[in-house]
Amino acid sequence: MPTLVLLRHGQSQWNLENRFTGWWDVDLSAAGIEEALAAGRLLKAEGFDFDCCFTSVLTRAIRTLHLALYQMDRLWLPVTKDWRLNERHYGGLTGLNKQEMVEKVGGEQVKIWRRSYDIPPPPLPEDSPYDVAGDRRYTGVDVPRTESLKDTIARAVPYYEAEIAPALAAGKRVLVSAHGNSLRGIIKYLSDISDDQIVGLEIPTGKPIVYELADDLSVERRYYVGEA
Amino acid sequence: MPTLVLLRHGQSQWNLENRFTGWWDVDLSAAGIEEALAAGRLLKAEGFDFDCCFTSVLTRAIRTLHLALYQMDRLWLPVTKDWRLNERHYGGLTGLNKQEMVEKVGGEQVKIWRRSYDIPPPPLPEDSPYDVAGDRRYTGVDVPRTESLKDTIARAVPYYEAEIAPALAAGKRVLVSAHGNSLRGIIKYLSDISDDQIVGLEIPTGKPIVYELADDLSVERRYYVGEA
Repeated sequence: MPTLVLLRHGQSQWNLENRFTGWWDVDLSAAGIEEALAAGRLLKAEGFDFDCCFTSVLTRAIRTLHLALYQMDRLWLPVTKDWRLNERHYGGLTGLNKQEMVEKVGGEQVKIWRRSYDIPPPPLPEDSPYDVAGDRRYTGVDVPRTESLKDTIARAVPYYEAEIAPALAAGKRVLVSAHGNSLRGIIKYLSDISDDQIVGLEIPTGKPIVYELADDLSVERRYYVGEA
Repeated sequence: MPTLVLLRHGQSQWNLENRFTGWWDVDLSAAGIEEALAAGRLLKAEGFDFDCCFTSVLTRAIRTLHLALYQMDRLWLPVTKDWRLNERHYGGLTGLNKQEMVEKVGGEQVKIWRRSYDIPPPPLPEDSPYDVAGDRRYTGVDVPRTESLKDTIARAVPYYEAEIAPALAAGKRVLVSAHGNSLRGIIKYLSDISDDQIVGLEIPTGKPIVYELADDLSVERRYYVGEA
């Protein structure tokens, strides 16, 4: 049976500081490292195993994957990294904490962005210290300057369809370590969640979500590891 | 200029205990972790950067690579893992320490194996606890039961030619994290070292070796990072 396990990276330093991170490459916090290790131990204890893995090109998701695989004695598994699994690009909000954002744009505007499926934050300013457009890992990529959740899903789902689904269709057990919003995209697609509903869906960090799939990759069952 | 950097994994728990390891998947020791981190810091401080990486399917080499890349902020680089970069398979010596080996087979025989290019140790016994033939990571691989240095080189060099050389020929900067004997193979090939000489070549752990190559991948210069 094709099995897909989705893992949201553990706490990062900026999660801890309540700052918008997006494509800025912030490392895991000490608690995030522990979450990743615990996820690996749990997967192993519950008898999960994998044939291949996918992750973003952001350190916090890659380390989460490595730490989990290490605990599973599976560091040798093939790992594919792709920017399409990156977190949503938060544009001009990148680096701000929630309080700074409210002060800057007002509480009403914050609510709109929070609850909106397709309204992006303002673009990242040209002089932003958080601009990653020139980063070598994005060579050949048209790096966005902001993204709505819809924009994020519009790259994460085609990546799922092009790269992850074929591995599943070949019977492989796949582990994906990624971010709140790229995972929302995959979950929206698989579980057929509406635009309105997906905005409010909270995906816990470090808590692996299992999708058991039929041969046609339709969903037979979804559950958290350890809560079957 | 195509640049190849070779990194021998840091100390493993069995290096510490002076035991033959080979294909048995022993983790890094605390000192080995430090060596790997230091190698990454040194590479970064000396201005090295990479486009892609290769390693074996053994934890100690993969972790060495991950730890070095982490220190370089390059965890996002593509990494290819292949058994052909594994350590030499030590056959029936696997798990023995040097003293146990001398007691078991006598000092003269030990000298022969130590100094020989093409005489393998006896095969791994059928009932060995160190048999990895059934390990899933070797699916489709004709797992050896012992290897001479010549045998090891006879798989490491074709791998270099088939997978690593094309990346270099495309102008990529390549980092290889592997093992004493698979690296001996690549060094023998690149530096045209004789069978007799390669047996005695000691490759230090955690100390990156740079090969600057011409466009035809002939060697222009070889040196240790930090000793240019």
